[in-house]
Amino acid sequence: MKPPLTHKPDPSLDLLLERTVDVPVELVWKAWTTPDLIKQWFAPRPWSTMECEIDLRPGGRFKTVMCNPEGQEFPGEGCILEVVENSKLVWTSAMGPGYRPYVGGTGESHGGFVFTAIITLEAEGNQTKYSALVVHGDEESCKKHEEMGFYGGWATVLEQLVEVMQAEQGK
Amino acid sequence: MKPPLTHKPDPSLDLLLERTVDVPVELVWKAWTTPDLIKQWFAPRPWSTMECEIDLRPGGRFKTVMCNPEGQEFPGEGCILEVVENSKLVWTSAMGPGYRPYVGGTGESHGGFVFTAIITLEAEGNQTKYSALVVHGDEESCKKHEEMGFYGGWATVLEQLVEVMQAEQGK
Repeated sequence: MKPPLTHKPDPSLDLLLERTVDVPVELVWKAWTTPDLIKQWFAPRPWSTMECEIDLRPGGRFKTVMCNPEGQEFPGEGCILEVVENSKLVWTSAMGPGYRPYVGGTGESHGGFVFTAIITLEAEGNQTKYSALVVHGDEESCKKHEEMGFYGGWATVLEQLVEVMQAEQGK
Repeated sequence: MKPPLTHKPDPSLDLLLERTVDVPVELVWKAWTTPDLIKQWFAPRPWSTMECEIDLRPGGRFKTVMCNPEGQEFPGEGCILEVVENSKLVWTSAMGPGYRPYVGGTGESHGGFVFTAIITLEAEGNQTKYSALVVHGDEESCKKHEEMGFYGGWATVLEQLVEVMQAEQGK
């Protein structure tokens, strides 16, 4: 078996957030793969994540229901593609569970575009080198995602993840 | 790590070909994962497969160029999703290498629809229980694929695979 693919970002099609966070790699992994934890950090407050369902294996369901402050719900059902414990998690909004492609790939539940999120983690002592690479099919989708506030949004929820997991550590 | 997902076909969205073939499971796997062998069986003759490139890991390229008897080329570039040696191979026409979704999901290079192919193999002595499950995003895509001759085509190329690998065994 070959080692996991290394992804080279394409600046015109991909969005990349890289940070080093003050949480051990096992806890970042746990935050991304445990529904009860996802609910605490996945949506930028005052949005919330009301529901989360994860079947943690290739082809498994990755479902969230986010909720805006007015109580409107935004369900999103994606598919998990790759699971390398404490190292790599890949999921996509372009398919549903069982790798079923969404026809048209319009990603209605995800802002009118589809993407694949490639989360890679690397331990640096008790810290974690965190990379979220989000790949799109064309420049328009990428731009739309950026204009929706990708960088601010994904940075904010990462800060929330850190806060939640530091509190978990203290328990 | 959970065991690989078991797929339950949906008769309105999926096409399923099941056969027991007279080739050991390791050779069916080899036929599906070796470009030089793919070229010998993947297209129903008198069509041919001129090119094949496989990066055998999740996110890797699955590329073929088929050619009709008039010499017209039909390139198809998909993405490998799951690799369980001698047991399960999944690839999709809905994404390119690196899990990049095709925008619109129109699958121009694959007859105007997109699909995911889930090949599962099981040893039965020196024979192999072979299952090709092809999942679509809507009934229209599924119907289009069936009308294009899915059952005849996939059965024919499986016969070609058997013939090629039986010849390999005799070498």
